[in-house]
Amino acid sequence: MNQWEQLDHEKIFRDPVLGHIYVQYKVVLNLINTAEFQRLRRVKQLGTTSFTFHGAEHSRFSHSLGVYEITRRICDNFQKNYPTKNKNDGLWDDSERLVALCAGLLHDLGHGPYSHTFEHIFDTNHEEITQAIITSEETEVNQVLKTVSPDFPNKVASVINKTYPNEQVVQMISSQCDADRMDYLIRDSFNTGAQYGAFDLSRILQVMRPYKDGICFKIVGVHAIEDYLVSRFQMYMQVYFHPVSRSMEVILNHLLKRSRFLFSNQKDDNQKKPDLLIPLFKNKVSLKDYLKLDDGVLNTYFIEWQDSDDEILSDLSKRFLNRRPFKSVVYDKHSAYLIKDMKKIIEDIGFDSNYYTATDNSFDQPYDIYDPDSNHHATQIEFMREDGSLVELSEVSPIVKAITGKLLGDKRFFFPKEMLNPNQNIDLFEEKYQYFNTFIHNGMIQTSKGENNYDFN
Amino acid sequence: MNQWEQLDHEKIFRDPVLGHIYVQYKVVLNLINTAEFQRLRRVKQLGTTSFTFHGAEHSRFSHSLGVYEITRRICDNFQKNYPTKNKNDGLWDDSERLVALCAGLLHDLGHGPYSHTFEHIFDTNHEEITQAIITSEETEVNQVLKTVSPDFPNKVASVINKTYPNEQVVQMISSQCDADRMDYLIRDSFNTGAQYGAFDLSRILQVMRPYKDGICFKIVGVHAIEDYLVSRFQMYMQVYFHPVSRSMEVILNHLLKRSRFLFSNQKDDNQKKPDLLIPLFKNKVSLKDYLKLDDGVLNTYFIEWQDSDDEILSDLSKRFLNRRPFKSVVYDKHSAYLIKDMKKIIEDIGFDSNYYTATDNSFDQPYDIYDPDSNHHATQIEFMREDGSLVELSEVSPIVKAITGKLLGDKRFFFPKEMLNPNQNIDLFEEKYQYFNTFIHNGMIQTSKGENNYDFN
Amino acid sequence: MNQWEQLDHEKIFRDPVLGHIYVQYKVVLNLINTAEFQRLRRVKQLGTTSFTFHGAEHSRFSHSLGVYEITRRICDNFQKNYPTKNKNDGLWDDSERLVALCAGLLHDLGHGPYSHTFEHIFDTNHEEITQAIITSEETEVNQVLKTVSPDFPNKVASVINKTYPNEQVVQMISSQCDADRMDYLIRDSFNTGAQYGAFDLSRILQVMRPYKDGICFKIVGVHAIEDYLVSRFQMYMQVYFHPVSRSMEVILNHLLKRSRFLFSNQKDDNQKKPDLLIPLFKNKVSLKDYLKLDDGVLNTYFIEWQDSDDEILSDLSKRFLNRRPFKSVVYDKHSAYLIKDMKKIIEDIGFDSNYYTATDNSFDQPYDIYDPDSNHHATQIEFMREDGSLVELSEVSPIVKAITGKLLGDKRFFFPKEMLNPNQNIDLFEEKYQYFNTFIHNGMIQTSKGENNYDFN
Amino acid sequence: MNQWEQLDHEKIFRDPVLGHIYVQYKVVLNLINTAEFQRLRRVKQLGTTSFTFHGAEHSRFSHSLGVYEITRRICDNFQKNYPTKNKNDGLWDDSERLVALCAGLLHDLGHGPYSHTFEHIFDTNHEEITQAIITSEETEVNQVLKTVSPDFPNKVASVINKTYPNEQVVQMISSQCDADRMDYLIRDSFNTGAQYGAFDLSRILQVMRPYKDGICFKIVGVHAIEDYLVSRFQMYMQVYFHPVSRSMEVILNHLLKRSRFLFSNQKDDNQKKPDLLIPLFKNKVSLKDYLKLDDGVLNTYFIEWQDSDDEILSDLSKRFLNRRPFKSVVYDKHSAYLIKDMKKIIEDIGFDSNYYTATDNSFDQPYDIYDPDSNHHATQIEFMREDGSLVELSEVSPIVKAITGKLLGDKRFFFPKEMLNPNQNIDLFEEKYQYFNTFIHNGMIQTSKGENNYDFN
Repeated sequence: MNQWEQLDHEKIFRDPVLGHIYVQYKVVLNLINTAEFQRLRRVKQLGTTSFTFHGAEHSRFSHSLGVYEITRRICDNFQKNYPTKNKNDGLWDDSERLVALCAGLLHDLGHGPYSHTFEHIFDTNHEEITQAIITSEETEVNQVLKTVSPDFPNKVASVINKTYPNEQVVQMISSQCDADRMDYLIRDSFNTGAQYGAFDLSRILQVMRPYKDGICFKIVGVHAIEDYLVSRFQMYMQVYFHPVSRSMEVILNHLLKRSRFLFSNQKDDNQKKPDLLIPLFKNKVSLKDYLKLDDGVLNTYFIEWQDSDDEILSDLSKRFLNRRPFKSVVYDKHSAYLIKDMKKIIEDIGFDSNYYTATDNSFDQPYDIYDPDSNHHATQIEFMREDGSLVELSEVSPIVKAITGKLLGDKRFFFPKEMLNPNQNIDLFEEKYQYFNTFIHNGMIQTSKGENNYDFN
Repeated sequence: MNQWEQLDHEKIFRDPVLGHIYVQYKVVLNLINTAEFQRLRRVKQLGTTSFTFHGAEHSRFSHSLGVYEITRRICDNFQKNYPTKNKNDGLWDDSERLVALCAGLLHDLGHGPYSHTFEHIFDTNHEEITQAIITSEETEVNQVLKTVSPDFPNKVASVINKTYPNEQVVQMISSQCDADRMDYLIRDSFNTGAQYGAFDLSRILQVMRPYKDGICFKIVGVHAIEDYLVSRFQMYMQVYFHPVSRSMEVILNHLLKRSRFLFSNQKDDNQKKPDLLIPLFKNKVSLKDYLKLDDGVLNTYFIEWQDSDDEILSDLSKRFLNRRPFKSVVYDKHSAYLIKDMKKIIEDIGFDSNYYTATDNSFDQPYDIYDPDSNHHATQIEFMREDGSLVELSEVSPIVKAITGKLLGDKRFFFPKEMLNPNQNIDLFEEKYQYFNTFIHNGMIQTSKGENNYDFN
Repeated sequence: MNQWEQLDHEKIFRDPVLGHIYVQYKVVLNLINTAEFQRLRRVKQLGTTSFTFHGAEHSRFSHSLGVYEITRRICDNFQKNYPTKNKNDGLWDDSERLVALCAGLLHDLGHGPYSHTFEHIFDTNHEEITQAIITSEETEVNQVLKTVSPDFPNKVASVINKTYPNEQVVQMISSQCDADRMDYLIRDSFNTGAQYGAFDLSRILQVMRPYKDGICFKIVGVHAIEDYLVSRFQMYMQVYFHPVSRSMEVILNHLLKRSRFLFSNQKDDNQKKPDLLIPLFKNKVSLKDYLKLDDGVLNTYFIEWQDSDDEILSDLSKRFLNRRPFKSVVYDKHSAYLIKDMKKIIEDIGFDSNYYTATDNSFDQPYDIYDPDSNHHATQIEFMREDGSLVELSEVSPIVKAITGKLLGDKRFFFPKEMLNPNQNIDLFEEKYQYFNTFIHNGMIQTSKGENNYDFN
Repeated sequence: MNQWEQLDHEKIFRDPVLGHIYVQYKVVLNLINTAEFQRLRRVKQLGTTSFTFHGAEHSRFSHSLGVYEITRRICDNFQKNYPTKNKNDGLWDDSERLVALCAGLLHDLGHGPYSHTFEHIFDTNHEEITQAIITSEETEVNQVLKTVSPDFPNKVASVINKTYPNEQVVQMISSQCDADRMDYLIRDSFNTGAQYGAFDLSRILQVMRPYKDGICFKIVGVHAIEDYLVSRFQMYMQVYFHPVSRSMEVILNHLLKRSRFLFSNQKDDNQKKPDLLIPLFKNKVSLKDYLKLDDGVLNTYFIEWQDSDDEILSDLSKRFLNRRPFKSVVYDKHSAYLIKDMKKIIEDIGFDSNYYTATDNSFDQPYDIYDPDSNHHATQIEFMREDGSLVELSEVSPIVKAITGKLLGDKRFFFPKEMLNPNQNIDLFEEKYQYFNTFIHNGMIQTSKGENNYDFN
C-alpha cells in the first residue's frame, strides 16, 4: 500500500465532543479496525472517576480518536499557514503528517484496566507496552503500520518515545499543550459535567505554530493558553484528585493485592480462579495475555469473588462493585504523626489496617518551566512576538506565574466509613469511635494545637 | 424512617446532560446506593450502538438518574403551578411525589446486558424482572423501599406495571411523552453526537400539566411536542435502527445461540465454562444469578471463547469483540423471495447460514392515537385549550398527522462482509461472488424487474 | 489588485453562532470595511421580533458575515471532495469561489430598517436596491468589487439575481437549503433562545454536493435535511409569525402611514421634520438618501414624535417605543365577515380604525416542489443515490411529504388592548366592551355556530 | 396593589443565555413595561465593543432581565436551604425578596448611550440617574414601585446606593460576585463568542449562602469562584480592554467634544441641530430630556454630521459610523516621554492632535481584599468552613492570590491609521512617516535603549 493511499470517501465519525472526526487515509482506518485498538472500547478513560462523576463513562477508544483528530487539525492548520519552503526554515513539512496521525491515534494503546492502580500492583508500564504493541510482529497494529514501510512502526514508536528527530511531531503528541492533554481535558470536562475543563480549543489551534525547535504560540494567544492551564489545574483539583475516586482506587488496590496474596499463598481454593490474571500473578505476562485484559474482566472476577470464603476478598469486592467508598481526611507534615494512632484504633475495632487504610498523595504541577538542574525536561510554553523573538509563558502571564513549578494537591488518609457512622447497635466500641473522631476537624487531621489551616509545604 | 425524611443537605450529582440531579430524600439516596442499582453502571444504555456511535458509552445508571430527575422536575412544576385544593379537582397531590420519584429511578432495574438480544435468546423480560427486584424480600432495593411503608414496594411496582390508581403518576413514567423517553432521547442524542435528538426539555416541562385523567399539555406547547416527536422519529431512523448496530446484534445473537448449543450438546470441552451464564442455559436462573450479569461478564466470556476449538464460536467472538460487522441490504415484500437464493450462495462458499446470516425488521410507530379496536392502549397526547377542552395532537399538527400510526423503519438481510470483499487470492469462488453481487443495487435487494424504489408497505 | 490576492494573515472574526469566520481574500475584507456594509450593523435582522424575543437583537451585519462563512465552508468542501477535472463533469470549479463569497456576503445589502414594513409603506424592494448598491458607481462596494475586474460587480449582482450561468453558485445563495437560510435559521434560533431552529449544519455541509444542474445531497443525508425543514417550519410558526411581533409591525406600519399623511397634508407643523425620511415621502429617494436610513434613525423620529400635537402620531409613537402591542385574534374564511362588526364597536369607543385595527395574514410554504404550471420556480431538494440517480425529497421523507406545498400560518385581526382590559373607571362603554368580547373564544373569532376548530383553508 | 400580588400565570421570557426568565409578581412585570425600562432596549450593553466582536449587539434591557433572574435564583436557593427561623440567625428573610428583585432589575436604568464616553464628556453619573429615575415622581417606574408602598422607591434606591440595612440584599446586587457581574460576564461571553467568560453559574448559586454579615460561599465552592474570577480577569484583558473598541471610544469622545465645541462657538450653522443633545451642551438636562437619549439618537446625528462643513466633525463621524479605528501602541512609564515627539510628527503631517490622538489607560483589579487603610471598601469573598468559621478567598487559592489587589491592563497611545499606511501617492511626507515608525517595535513604543519587555508598574 502506498503510504498516502486515501480512502475513496473520507470516513467521518460523529463525536460528541469534537463534532466530527475525519479519516482520509486507509492506514488510519485499518489501525482503528485492529483488535488491539478495539480493545480500548473496553477500558474506561477515567477508571474509578465514574464512581464520583457518573457521566465519566467514556473509553480510551473515544479519547484516542480525539487525540488523532486534534493532531489532524494541527497538521491542517500548519500545512495551510506554515508550509515549509526550504529545509531548515522551521516550518511544517507535511510529509510528517502520517507519522503524527498514527502516533496520536496509538499513544494510549498499552493502557490496562484501571490503569493507575493496575500498574502499581503489577509493576507494568503502559508507555512501554504501547511501544511493544506497535513494534511487536504479533500484533495487527504492527501489520498495518508495516504496509506503509518496514520502519514505520519504529518511527511511530519513537514519536511516543520522544526520540523522533522532528521535534514538531513529538511536541504535537507530548508537551505541556499537546493533542493528548487537550483532548482529555475537554472530553473529561464534557463527560463529567465539570465545566471547569472547558477551554477554547479552536482558538488554541489558531495561535499554535511551528518553529525551528518545535511548536510555539502566537503572542496574541497568551490568554487562550492561560485559560487552558487554569482549566487543567482545576480539573486536577476538582475531578482527577477527587477524594471519593481516590478512595475507590484504594479499595481496588487492596482488592488486587489481597487476590495476589491468596494466590501466592495457595489460599484461594474457594476463590474463583481468575484465569486471565494468573499470568500477572506469576509475573509471566505475554503481550497476548495482556491484551485480553479490560475493565469488564476485572469486574467479572470481583463479581465472582463476592462469594469467596476469604472475608477480606469478599468484602472488598462488594465495596468496590457496590460503591462503598472509604472516608478520608487531609493531613500535612505537621499532623502525619497522628496517623499511626488512628490506625491503631481502626485495628482495635477489628479492621486489618493493611487492607482497610491507606495514605495517598495526589499532587500535580500545573505548569513547569525548563530547569537546567532538573533531570525532568519539561517543554516550556513559548510565544513568538511580531519580530520573531520568543518569550516564555510565565513571563507574560501573572496568573501562570503564580502556579508555575508549584505542586498542588493534597495528602489523604483513608479508612472505613464505619469509623464515622458505626452501626447503631455496636456500642461495645463506642468510646473508641468517639476518640477516633477527636482527631478530625474541618475534614483534616488536627494536632493538639488545633491548627486550622492546611500547610501546603 | 419517616417517608418524607429529608437529607440534612440536598445531595447534588453533576450530570453532563441535565446539568445537576438533586436528591432531597434519604430513601432515594439509599436506593441509589443499593447493589442492584449500582449494577446498572455496568450495563450500557445502548448496547451495540456504541459500535456505530463511539460516544454512546453511557450506562443505564446515568439514564436512570436522569429519569428520576425529570420526574422530580415535573413534580416541582406541578406542585408550584397546579397544587390540588380538593379531591377530584384533577390537580396534583404532592403526597404522590415519592412513589413517582422511586418508580422513575427504578424503572430499568431489571435490564440485562445487551438487553434486546439477551431477552430474545434467554426468553427473559426486563419489566417483570424489574418488578421482581422491587418486590422480592432478598434485594437491598426492597429493604430500602420498605423503610417507607410495608406496601411501598408494591406501590412502586404497580406504577411501573401501570396499575397504580393515580394516572398522573403512571403517565409521568409511561406514556408517549414521559420522563423515561425524554431522558433517553436527550441523553442518547448528547452522547452519540446526533443532534437530531435534541428538543426543548424545559419548554415541554413548562407546558405539561395534570388534569383529571392524567397528564396533558397547554395548547401553546404544540410545537414543542411536535419537535419532540420528530426528534424521536429521527433518533429511531438514524441511531436506534442503524444497520451496523443491528449487525453487531445479529452477531451477538448468533454467538450466544452457538454457546448454548455447544453447552446443550456437551461439545464445549474446550469452551471456557461460562459459569455465570450456566443458570440461563439451564433455564434455572434465580434473581441472585441474574443480578450478577453485566456487559463485562459477557465480554469476558467472549474474550475466552476466542481461543475455543469450536471455529464458529471463536470466529463470532472475534467478530464481536473486534467489531467486524456483517454487511446488510434492504429488502421488501417484493424482493424477500430472493433471500433464499442469496443464502444458498453463502452456504456454497462455506458459511453456515444459521450463524452467518439473518433477517431483521426494525420498525417504530413514532406516534399512536387511541384505537378502540386495538388491544394496545397507547396514551395519546392531548392539549388543553383556554376553555378547558382537550384536543388530540394530530388534529392540530399536520406534521404529526403525517406520521401518526405509521410504522417506519426497514427490513434487512445480513451476511458476512466477505461476500462483498473476498480475499484477493480466493478466486476459486469468483463467479459465485460476482453472482451474489447481482442481487444488490443501491443498497437493496433488487428483483429482476430492477425496481429501484423501496415499498414501505 | 489580483482577483485572488490573499491577506498576509488570514483574518478571523469570532462569531457566537458559527465559532469563527475566516477571511482569506483582501477583496472580502475590503468589502466588509465599506460604508454600505457597515451600515448593516445598524439594522436589526429580525426587526420587531426583539419585542417578543428580547435576545433577538442581532444585526444584518452579523447575519451577512454568517452567510459568507457558510458559503466559504461549502466551497471548501466542494473543492476538497468534488473538484472538477474537466469541463461539464458537473463538479466544482474553484475559480467560481470569489463570486460566490462576495454574493453571499452582500446579498442583504439593500435592506432598510424594519424591512418588511418599510418596503410595504414606501414601495421599495431590497433585492433591487442590493443590486443597485453593487452596480452603482457611487458606492464603495462597487469600487472594491471593480478591483477584481470591471465586470465583477455585474457578476456578483447576477448571482443575487439568479441569472448567473453557474447554477451551483446561484443555489449556494438562493435555494430551499442555501447559505442564507441556514445562517438565519441557526442565528435566529441561537439569539431568540428558541431551540426549534437548531439543526445540524455541519452534517448538512457534509452531505451537500455539486452536480451538473446545481446542488444536491447525498442520500445518507435525508434525515439531516428533513430536520432542517422541520426546524424551518417551526421557526416560522413560533418565531417569525409570532402575534406580538406582528402586532408591533402593525403599529409601525400605521405610524409611518400617519407621518406620511401628515406630511402630505401639511399638518405636521409641530411634527419634528423627519429630514432623512422626506425623500421617501416625496418618492424621490436617491441611493445616497436610502443608505442614511437605519433602525436608530426611525426610532429617533418616533422619540421626537411622542411630543407631537397630532394625537394619533404621538400615541402610536409611544405604543411602539414603549412596547404596547395591539391584541389579536385568529379568524378564518368562515368568521371573517364578523370583523366589520368588531371594527364598528372599536370606532364607537373612539379609536380611528384606520390606525388602530388591522388584519394580517402570515403564511409560509415550508417546502415546495417543482410545478410546471406555476410561474414560481422553486428549486426542489434532491438526493443522489449510489448509482448517481436523483430522487426528490418528499418521495423519501413522509414527514416532508406532509408539509410539501402546504401554506401554513394564520390570519389575525389586530385591535387595541384596551378593548379587552378597559380602564376601570370608564364604564360609559361597559356594554360595548362586553359585546366585543362575545366575538372571541379560545383566541379566535367565533361565529354564532360556535365552531371551535380552525379551518386552515 | 398588594406587595406580593402574583400573576395568574407566571410570565416566562425565553433568554438565550439563562434559558428562561420567570416573573411571578405583577409589580415586576409592570416595571418591565415602563417607558424608562423599555428605553434600555435601545442602549447596547457593550457600546463600541461590537465594533470588535460583532456578536456583542445585546442591549442593557437583556442584561437587566438577566440580573433580575439571577437575583431571583439566589432568593429561591436561600429560601429553600437557608430560611430564617428567628431574627438575627443570619439566615434569609424572604420578605426581602421583592426589594432585591426590583433592585436587580432596575440597577442599570440610568445608563446613557455609549455610557462610558457619554459620562466622561457630559459629566453625568449613571448611578445617580438610576436613583433619580426610581425616586422621581415623574417616572412610570416610580409610579409602579409606589403601588407596593409609599417608601418602596426609596428602599429600592437605597439597595443600589448600598445603604439598605440588609447586607445580604445589598451584596446580591453589589459585591465582587453579585448578580450584576455574573450576568454581564456570562452574557458578554456568550454574545462575543469569547469562551473565556464562561463559568459555572449554577455551581456558584449552589455554594452561595447567607450569613449574618452578608453573603459568603461554602468551602467546597473555592474552585467555582476561582474559575469565575479568572474568567472575569480574562474578559477584561481580552474583550473589555480590546484596543480596537477603545480606539472607537476615542473617536466617539473626540466627535462629541468637537460637536460641543462647535455649538459653544456658534460655528455649527451647517451642523444639523442635534436637538436632543442641546440640553446637555447647555448643561441644563432634565430627567425627561435624558430619557430621550439612546444609541440610535447619537448615531442619527453622526449620520447627519457626515455632511457637515466642519471637516473634523464630518471626518470623525465617518470614521465612527464606518468603523475606521485609530491605531494604537502600548507605552509605559519609561517610554511615555516619547509621545510628545510622536504627536509632533502627527501634527506636522496635518492632523489636529486634539482630535486625532489620545492616550488611554485601562486597568482592572480582578479581585480586591479589605484594606483598612483604603477608603474604597470592597467586599471581600469569603468561605464558610464546616465549623462555621470564615476564610478569605486569596488564603485558599494560590491563583487568586496571584492577582489579588493587582492592577492589570495597559496604557495606549492612539493615532490615525494613516500614520502606518499612508496613501501611496503622498510621498511628500515619506520621511516623516518613516521616522514615526521607528518609535514602534512589537506593538509598543520603544525607547532608544530598545527595551522589549513591558513594565507593568
